[in-house]
Amino acid sequence: PLRRKHDERSAVFADLSREEYLQVQQFMLKQNNLEISTNQISKPSDNFLFLIDLSVPKKADVLAYLDRNGAKPTREATVVVFYGAKGYIKEYVVGPLPNPTYVNDVTMERYHKELPISARTVTIGEYNLLFQFLGDVFTKLGKIMKESFDMGPDKQLNAFEQMPRGVRTGDRKTWISFFRDMSGMYIHPVGFEVLVDHQSVNASEWKVEMLLYNGQYFDSIDALKDKYDKDLVKKIVYKESPDYGSLKPRNKPLQVGPQLFNAEGKRYSVSNNHVVYMDWSFAFGLSALTGMRVFDVRFNDERIVYELSVQEAMSVYGSVTPGMILTKFLDSSIGIGRFAHELVRGVDCPYEASYVDTYRYIDVPKPVRFRNSICIFEHNMGQPLRRHFSDFFHHSYGGMVNSALVFRTITAIGNYDYMWDFIFYQSGSVEAKVHATGYISSSYLVDGALRHGHQVAEKVLGNIHTHFINFKVDLDVLGVKNFFQTKDMEYVNVSLPWMPDHYAMVPQLVEKQLKTEKEAALRYDTKTPRYLHISSNKTNRWGHQRSYRLQVFSFTGDNLPESQAEERAMSWARYKVAITKHKDGEQTSSSLYSQNDIWSPAVDFSKYIEDNESIEDEDLVAWVTTGFLHIPHSEDIPNTVTVGNGGGVLLRPHNYFDMDPSIHSADSVYLSPG
Amino acid sequence: PLRRKHDERSAVFADLSREEYLQVQQFMLKQNNLEISTNQISKPSDNFLFLIDLSVPKKADVLAYLDRNGAKPTREATVVVFYGAKGYIKEYVVGPLPNPTYVNDVTMERYHKELPISARTVTIGEYNLLFQFLGDVFTKLGKIMKESFDMGPDKQLNAFEQMPRGVRTGDRKTWISFFRDMSGMYIHPVGFEVLVDHQSVNASEWKVEMLLYNGQYFDSIDALKDKYDKDLVKKIVYKESPDYGSLKPRNKPLQVGPQLFNAEGKRYSVSNNHVVYMDWSFAFGLSALTGMRVFDVRFNDERIVYELSVQEAMSVYGSVTPGMILTKFLDSSIGIGRFAHELVRGVDCPYEASYVDTYRYIDVPKPVRFRNSICIFEHNMGQPLRRHFSDFFHHSYGGMVNSALVFRTITAIGNYDYMWDFIFYQSGSVEAKVHATGYISSSYLVDGALRHGHQVAEKVLGNIHTHFINFKVDLDVLGVKNFFQTKDMEYVNVSLPWMPDHYAMVPQLVEKQLKTEKEAALRYDTKTPRYLHISSNKTNRWGHQRSYRLQVFSFTGDNLPESQAEERAMSWARYKVAITKHKDGEQTSSSLYSQNDIWSPAVDFSKYIEDNESIEDEDLVAWVTTGFLHIPHSEDIPNTVTVGNGGGVLLRPHNYFDMDPSIHSADSVYLSPG
Ligand SMILES: [Ca+2]
Ligand SMILES: [Ca+2]
Ligand SMILES: [Ca+2]
Ligand SMILES: [Ca+2]
Ligand SMILES: [Cu+2]
Ligand SMILES: [Cu+2]
Repeated sequence: PLRRKHDERSAVFADLSREEYLQVQQFMLKQNNLEISTNQISKPSDNFLFLIDLSVPKKADVLAYLDRNGAKPTREATVVVFYGAKGYIKEYVVGPLPNPTYVNDVTMERYHKELPISARTVTIGEYNLLFQFLGDVFTKLGKIMKESFDMGPDKQLNAFEQMPRGVRTGDRKTWISFFRDMSGMYIHPVGFEVLVDHQSVNASEWKVEMLLYNGQYFDSIDALKDKYDKDLVKKIVYKESPDYGSLKPRNKPLQVGPQLFNAEGKRYSVSNNHVVYMDWSFAFGLSALTGMRVFDVRFNDERIVYELSVQEAMSVYGSVTPGMILTKFLDSSIGIGRFAHELVRGVDCPYEASYVDTYRYIDVPKPVRFRNSICIFEHNMGQPLRRHFSDFFHHSYGGMVNSALVFRTITAIGNYDYMWDFIFYQSGSVEAKVHATGYISSSYLVDGALRHGHQVAEKVLGNIHTHFINFKVDLDVLGVKNFFQTKDMEYVNVSLPWMPDHYAMVPQLVEKQLKTEKEAALRYDTKTPRYLHISSNKTNRWGHQRSYRLQVFSFTGDNLPESQAEERAMSWARYKVAITKHKDGEQTSSSLYSQNDIWSPAVDFSKYIEDNESIEDEDLVAWVTTGFLHIPHSEDIPNTVTVGNGGGVLLRPHNYFDMDPSIHSADSVYLSPG
Repeated sequence: PLRRKHDERSAVFADLSREEYLQVQQFMLKQNNLEISTNQISKPSDNFLFLIDLSVPKKADVLAYLDRNGAKPTREATVVVFYGAKGYIKEYVVGPLPNPTYVNDVTMERYHKELPISARTVTIGEYNLLFQFLGDVFTKLGKIMKESFDMGPDKQLNAFEQMPRGVRTGDRKTWISFFRDMSGMYIHPVGFEVLVDHQSVNASEWKVEMLLYNGQYFDSIDALKDKYDKDLVKKIVYKESPDYGSLKPRNKPLQVGPQLFNAEGKRYSVSNNHVVYMDWSFAFGLSALTGMRVFDVRFNDERIVYELSVQEAMSVYGSVTPGMILTKFLDSSIGIGRFAHELVRGVDCPYEASYVDTYRYIDVPKPVRFRNSICIFEHNMGQPLRRHFSDFFHHSYGGMVNSALVFRTITAIGNYDYMWDFIFYQSGSVEAKVHATGYISSSYLVDGALRHGHQVAEKVLGNIHTHFINFKVDLDVLGVKNFFQTKDMEYVNVSLPWMPDHYAMVPQLVEKQLKTEKEAALRYDTKTPRYLHISSNKTNRWGHQRSYRLQVFSFTGDNLPESQAEERAMSWARYKVAITKHKDGEQTSSSLYSQNDIWSPAVDFSKYIEDNESIEDEDLVAWVTTGFLHIPHSEDIPNTVTVGNGGGVLLRPHNYFDMDPSIHSADSVYLSPG
């Protein structure tokens, strides 16, 4: 028996359906003047329809619809076209669905500048050409490739590319590292890297700019061949590698472990993109770019969070080998949600979880269904949510087990798998968590490499790197008008009232209200007040401002110094928490175009703060950064484990309710002596 | 089917059995010269046998026994006698069990000073007299008590005492606060507090030193009566209070939540005080004073942790009311393990968990059995321990669910319940976690009180306080001779090898080895390297020192300033992590005598560091502090929830194994396209 009803209006947050993607695609193809291709192996010089995604409706329109019986917001799609033929990228809004009548160029409105074609994500079409290009390189280097890596007709090397692709705007020069064609290729580097300049949209103009072989640089393919033949090169002699990257079980299952079991059925319900669970309800979606998100999160029908969403996953690597020297991955430019694949029952989520399919349109000729790519389940956390045993005065016991709803996707972006969890507790808290697993990124062990990590296998360096994750937390505490408060303690010397000549240092509560965006941009490297609150000026029964507290769990390394040109594309990582005034035009902290034009990023988060707006009695958004410093070690082989490798933020009621709402849970248990 | 065998030698770490307690008690009673009483309501002026507990055998003896076929260490008990008649406390070692022949006074050896009787814990016997004393106070104040609090023959107030009991050594002056006789009395303060001087072991000399009524101080009972009768007092007029502290369910159960289910039986085994689980094995115990502990923790038969134990739970409170102005609770002086009561199946631990009884002898006339006071279970954490999905080059999936063994007690020390978990993961990590739940401590709301917290109920202030928890982590990484290493990152400006005029800031690994105890005492208020390691000089397959990393999860508030006399009794809280050279004489970071002689503590942890010994190639012990700042809020009523209110330390293999040991787990799953 459910306590809440589903709300069909949550459809305003729903991802586009297969039909809607097709409606938009067909409408775009009808615009003859645009000359757009939807062929997946379009060439870079074509005009390629790269992305169709929900255009999230304006918040004011949604709130009018949900809260004040306003009109249903127009259903619209964002469309991204890479105009290879014209040298730029355009972002459009197409609507109204299901029968589009307009296509508006919103590029300037959203990014305040034109987007150069060099800022585009590498498409399947471009990869196709790159692999052909590399094939030619291998052919030219046939003898070296055979002797060093045993390459031949039946045996390939696999490529893994490093980003950014160069050092300045316009660059598209990619160091491509090569790996053995084995499971977990990412931890089988061979010691060969090629710098390919593929800036031109015309692949015939692409060229090899540099090569790295066993730690030695060569200006050209011929130079490498020549020196190799003259024995002026420290040669790599092919040797088979043990299959240490394999995830195949080494032992047979003996006895299954503990399983979750819903003896009396599920206590939550999923209808379209809406979930109800105990006192909770929320809408959900999965952006192909930024990933998992929920909207209109309500407890007891009262909205607490308007939007909670993944924004970006970023890593900065250290190395002596050329690709990884510069490597700074900005995953949302490749697409985080794009890689939310099928979840495996009983491993990725409990066997009894509910699984939801998603549909995406990114770098494809038609919408693609991703079966079981979201899971939802109630989990028994194996511990009490609260309990008290009393043996003084009153002999009794009261408590309840911590059962909570987990909303999960796992996105496997190349080597790494990020597990994303939003957890809804019966005590009114919501938690956003991320854990990393999958393969580390590695490089071939050369002289000096150990300054940047640890050796983790024969000739393999696990490179030091950071994991920075950004979440958008648009809390609306009793409406959109909120304040940002901090609370902490300080010791104050006080005279004891009953012996005034005696003094003691006594903890006091220190409360502050931060007034502007700059004040409320809490840098990761400074001391931060221990309690951070988004507050309403409405008070609870005891006169305290009702609020939700943000508790951040983070183990990040240092952010890239601001002296680096690349830093502005990841300027959100300067802050543990930054509070901005909500704007529909500031929908995300990163962008699709940040990775490939990292030096002039389409979105520089720090600009959201630069105008230093008032954050008093405004619609506030908290941008939360978490993550961890990763110094790879032998136990990262074959895969990094999730235990200890994560971070998150817990949103907790603080003087929001008049008492802990879990007291009303039907899971409460009370025992008293007979 | 279990992979490991039980080891009977783990009995050296076992708590004393009921028979052993009795053997020791009888032997002590036979020492006529000591004139000891075991009567539970002994008077403070009696010589009272307060405690019998295992005397943990010397580490060298245990290691000789376990590792080198040495003799079995002598089984001995620690005995604490409060010599009220003589004015001091003595600690003895009694042995050998089962037939004791000696009783050695070890007070000086252990504490390097005599222990004054004023340092003793308040016993049931002393409470008995205190309640009689308070009864007289109430009688004298009959009219006020009736009018203000409706006290009468059928209606009492309950007492809750604040500590420390005064401001200097020898003091035993306790502010006792009164609370309504309702469930969750701790959140029903009435506004009446009495300062009782009970320093004399002769109760007839006890006196009321001061009273607080509704925020006003009075020198004597008569002064309060007099002013009350003359209407010179702001009177409290009795009013019934709603039963907001009750933990009784407000709703009927509708549908049970998800349960843990061992479809094919348990995969661990408990035999006496020894546990085996997958590759893990360990011995366990529960000290009446410090609480839960495990010894000789092995993975794959290789010892990793010699001892992992709870040491202390400390809180510093802030208030304007007199008791709580000074309040600094040091729970191990009352006994943490002492309050490990029966765990409730299905709430405190999963229904299918294994439950273990414990026996204690503390402030009792005979050993007491605590049924089901430890639970052990394998938990499905509801997430993968590791996984990777590959859709590039190799299409496959490998992963395994995170099932781990949880070892738990919950200790309800007055108002608070601490949940203690040691968790054993298949990836070779061990985690020590603590969460707080139960009732907050509160005070009657008077003028100025809001500087120290938030109002949480009618006339009730939830007082700001810290939770500091100390764990002892005696890792032995490949033997006892270890090093303390730190690792972190730093950005270094390097010229790009293929374009030398271009520079970039690149993350480098920074490794240090700290050489002395003072260097390795990492203060909580300073920047700490992100990776902390206990290392062997033995290397793994790739030449890196094999190590375990300590990852601390902590949200502590500020430690009490060192200017305060009370601080030395909690000096372990200065450090996130402090590394000392192991000594049998430095068994604990706190002591039974710290609370009641907080100004001259029997153990001052900072002295372990003061001699600044070398920590290179020595047996190292890490003392880890965690906890959180607690600013109570309305959702702490009726109980604080565990979510977000905790801390811990994760011990992780780091270049210890040649690869992640979970790869050998039979739980591994691998899928590849048919
Ligand atoms: Ca702004
Ligand atoms: Ca907001
Ligand atoms: Ca020392
Ligand atoms: Ca050690
Ligand atoms: Cu990593
Ligand atoms: Cu607390």
